[in-house]
Amino acid sequence: MRFLILGNEKKLQVREQAELLAREIPAAGGQVVLIDLNSESNLEHVEADVALVLGGDGAILRASRQMNTHQIPVLGINYGRLGFLADLSTDEVLPQLKSVVEGRFRLCKHLMFECEIEGNGKFHKYLGLNEVVIRSSPPFHMVDLSLSIDGEEVSRFLGDGIIVSTPIGSTAYSLAAGGPILSQELPVFVITQMCGHTLTYRPLVDSAQKTYSIRLEATDGACVVIDGQELIELASLQTVTVRKSAVEFQTIKVGSKTYYRTLRDKLNWGTTPNYRGNKLS
Amino acid sequence: MRFLILGNEKKLQVREQAELLAREIPAAGGQVVLIDLNSESNLEHVEADVALVLGGDGAILRASRQMNTHQIPVLGINYGRLGFLADLSTDEVLPQLKSVVEGRFRLCKHLMFECEIEGNGKFHKYLGLNEVVIRSSPPFHMVDLSLSIDGEEVSRFLGDGIIVSTPIGSTAYSLAAGGPILSQELPVFVITQMCGHTLTYRPLVDSAQKTYSIRLEATDGACVVIDGQELIELASLQTVTVRKSAVEFQTIKVGSKTYYRTLRDKLNWGTTPNYRGNKLS
Amino acid sequence: MRFLILGNEKKLQVREQAELLAREIPAAGGQVVLIDLNSESNLEHVEADVALVLGGDGAILRASRQMNTHQIPVLGINYGRLGFLADLSTDEVLPQLKSVVEGRFRLCKHLMFECEIEGNGKFHKYLGLNEVVIRSSPPFHMVDLSLSIDGEEVSRFLGDGIIVSTPIGSTAYSLAAGGPILSQELPVFVITQMCGHTLTYRPLVDSAQKTYSIRLEATDGACVVIDGQELIELASLQTVTVRKSAVEFQTIKVGSKTYYRTLRDKLNWGTTPNYRGNKLS
Amino acid sequence: MRFLILGNEKKLQVREQAELLAREIPAAGGQVVLIDLNSESNLEHVEADVALVLGGDGAILRASRQMNTHQIPVLGINYGRLGFLADLSTDEVLPQLKSVVEGRFRLCKHLMFECEIEGNGKFHKYLGLNEVVIRSSPPFHMVDLSLSIDGEEVSRFLGDGIIVSTPIGSTAYSLAAGGPILSQELPVFVITQMCGHTLTYRPLVDSAQKTYSIRLEATDGACVVIDGQELIELASLQTVTVRKSAVEFQTIKVGSKTYYRTLRDKLNWGTTPNYRGNKLS
Repeated sequence: MRFLILGNEKKLQVREQAELLAREIPAAGGQVVLIDLNSESNLEHVEADVALVLGGDGAILRASRQMNTHQIPVLGINYGRLGFLADLSTDEVLPQLKSVVEGRFRLCKHLMFECEIEGNGKFHKYLGLNEVVIRSSPPFHMVDLSLSIDGEEVSRFLGDGIIVSTPIGSTAYSLAAGGPILSQELPVFVITQMCGHTLTYRPLVDSAQKTYSIRLEATDGACVVIDGQELIELASLQTVTVRKSAVEFQTIKVGSKTYYRTLRDKLNWGTTPNYRGNKLS
Repeated sequence: MRFLILGNEKKLQVREQAELLAREIPAAGGQVVLIDLNSESNLEHVEADVALVLGGDGAILRASRQMNTHQIPVLGINYGRLGFLADLSTDEVLPQLKSVVEGRFRLCKHLMFECEIEGNGKFHKYLGLNEVVIRSSPPFHMVDLSLSIDGEEVSRFLGDGIIVSTPIGSTAYSLAAGGPILSQELPVFVITQMCGHTLTYRPLVDSAQKTYSIRLEATDGACVVIDGQELIELASLQTVTVRKSAVEFQTIKVGSKTYYRTLRDKLNWGTTPNYRGNKLS
Repeated sequence: MRFLILGNEKKLQVREQAELLAREIPAAGGQVVLIDLNSESNLEHVEADVALVLGGDGAILRASRQMNTHQIPVLGINYGRLGFLADLSTDEVLPQLKSVVEGRFRLCKHLMFECEIEGNGKFHKYLGLNEVVIRSSPPFHMVDLSLSIDGEEVSRFLGDGIIVSTPIGSTAYSLAAGGPILSQELPVFVITQMCGHTLTYRPLVDSAQKTYSIRLEATDGACVVIDGQELIELASLQTVTVRKSAVEFQTIKVGSKTYYRTLRDKLNWGTTPNYRGNKLS
Repeated sequence: MRFLILGNEKKLQVREQAELLAREIPAAGGQVVLIDLNSESNLEHVEADVALVLGGDGAILRASRQMNTHQIPVLGINYGRLGFLADLSTDEVLPQLKSVVEGRFRLCKHLMFECEIEGNGKFHKYLGLNEVVIRSSPPFHMVDLSLSIDGEEVSRFLGDGIIVSTPIGSTAYSLAAGGPILSQELPVFVITQMCGHTLTYRPLVDSAQKTYSIRLEATDGACVVIDGQELIELASLQTVTVRKSAVEFQTIKVGSKTYYRTLRDKLNWGTTPNYRGNKLS
């Protein structure tokens, strides 16, 4: 079993943890192919079986985009906030290392998107895992957006912007904007409005087989943000197109924790207000 | 092409319209097999190609449950409110009749659910198209419900109740309770809370391949409502199980109106507030 | 200092706690005027300075309506859920008893409403503290309501119903239906829709000096529920009128706990999702 | 009656309309004291009875801040979107001019806020009418804010930001972020979260007599936006304080249109979905 070790060395303990793993993996019978704690390597030609990512969901999102069209299964080790993607905490990783080296884990595949931005003769393409946000930027006037699905113009938005999210992304920004939780394996996107003046709008859950185009009709300042990490300025009449990517993000699950359990642990999803002395809690 | 004519003769014009169609269908080359304007026939052994349903979404929901495991493609003729299912208005039906008789239409298939209610040694099974609502009834104290998905207890609800809705049902009661819009062809259910004291709850969109069980933990009065039409009393510790039905609901589409167009027409979905003299409208 | 002791003796420990207090109050220099654990006494002519209410917010709501136009300051002792009104828990009451007997406490006054139901020649009047709910009842079809404020017809509702809530009630049912939190001392009502098909509706916070009339335009079953405790059937074209009552509900505050603290403790209001290893929690 | 004429001459027709009014006002018996279509005059020492503002709510917000501590009653003439403040449309103004000149109108007074931003030894003070927004700016990472009310730290926010809005502002940005509608005369603020990860947060309506302080705990980019028009960068540990201003904004009402009517006309507030052939519409 060949391992990549990725992460952000600026975060506390990441360098130290990487070195510890680099010693322990061979001892457990595995092989460390590459350590990159600065997101600087081109991973498209690196052959490995597992990418150990140190540092929470943000680090995993970054690793996923770094691997680009050559996705290696990710085992995330959580240092950060809200670990929906990171399966293990730092103290769980060593006890589980043997299992991973011996291939005793489940592999889950997840929808990724590609996002094209066209306009002014330019054309850019991005890959992502969580969401595409088209939003107002300073001076923060309303953006006016039109949404087309498979070529049909379906809706108009006035407000802070809209989010096209995958199921993985549905518990991140889209949730904060009022979107539903999507079970992680569904082949769907959700389109959620941010602070919209369109009072009749409700989030739309629609097929990942369709193509979603958002045109910026007019603006005093707008941008696209991908996975909360890449920011691209957007001008009037530019169009952002989102569709399912051909590649899939892959996660390694070693524990028995289910998605619903994670929802309860991380979001307090569906837990009841505080009671004194009641039988429910 | 063999036709059933269904509907509710208590509604204005339904009887008259049914008689008109019974004359015009043979003239257009079709055959009327049965007219039932009282929902009283057992349709399970009736052979027909098209069920013309007069009277809006409510009539179609009723017809669908009346056909039970033997679903005949439905062409709905809208007299009522909010026609998401009824494709034609009364003045569109005669001009389109020739097309229908000649089989020039699209057939859409839709997820139906079956709902089992067990407890106290009793066991009942229902078929439906829109949603199952488990809700408090007089004296309207909070209900305390637990939700299991594929046998795993995933959440607890305190409030007015919860809704398990199909995509077709997502624009009905679930939407009113804060649920998202689900594109009609998706193989998913959405579980939406009604007036919940569980502030962290968000609607969950999950696979239609899974089995959803809701147990009534304690109550002073609760019931199950199916498609807004069947009401069954529920006692403490009874369990309501919802899963995908083996049969599918089928609709006939003759016009060119898309689902997104219907969303805009019926819900004003994604339309902007009223402006004076602006270029957007 | 003269004490009433009220509560629901069917609840565990209430009888026992009442007897304990009946012994301890004289020892602390106070006087017990009446003990009623069945809500059966007419309290309108009882002279007392403090009503000790054993049993949570529900018991306090009941006590408040029992006192009717003769409101005695309430000190609530919390056995139940979500104590927004009950200031003390059972183990805090004895240590604080001396302070109360000696009058060392703050008195807070709160808006109460009166609710008149007219129609069919009948006329009924109710007093309440939390909210008036006008809602559908079995068979649970939509209710169609019109709202007038100070005689001007201002809005129409289709859905499960509407809630007219006081600030005290704003953290109860109205909150579950999507209403805002109102600071307890404000002279306002909030009108919140329950599962409305009126997608453009937003909760309206308006002056408690105004008169709110809700007319039931058409129904297959509807009722009025006051403070979650009184249920009155409602027929088509009956009107429910809500206005500020001349009497005020009074609570005794002995602790230093603020309203905002209660919001955090009871509702987890404004607390952040669960993190691993972060400095915020 | 002495008139100011204000507005934005870059907008179509504003210059032309201003000249028309400058001719018609003397003819009706009034006096034009000043015309400023570039927001460049210091209005603090201008004596006038009515400020005619050409150009919608945005122009009125700007005029209100331009008048600063010397508020002159505003009559707004609506060219733009969503006229909650502008009472007349361009074709209504001439027929009503006589009434205005003769003083036949109602005067409404409205809550304004002052906003202080302190930190790094600097101190700035702003006056406004709608709302203070504290929000993330590029690269659009979450902001972490703490809210204190009258010196008590009451809540913590993670998300896009928060809004402190007046009743006048409640139908603008706060509404888009999920806030309630506040009747225009209420002495309250509403604090609304924007795309918050704090799932238990609900908008808080609280007294305008209190002082609201929001501290930016940590950030990679944040700013304050006042009335959608002034943008001030904000650094970590800076505090933004909002309180009731000593001055009040004043509007002149000549028509009979009520606030509830405006809600219906502008927001479709409380109007029902589209129906075919039903008796409600």
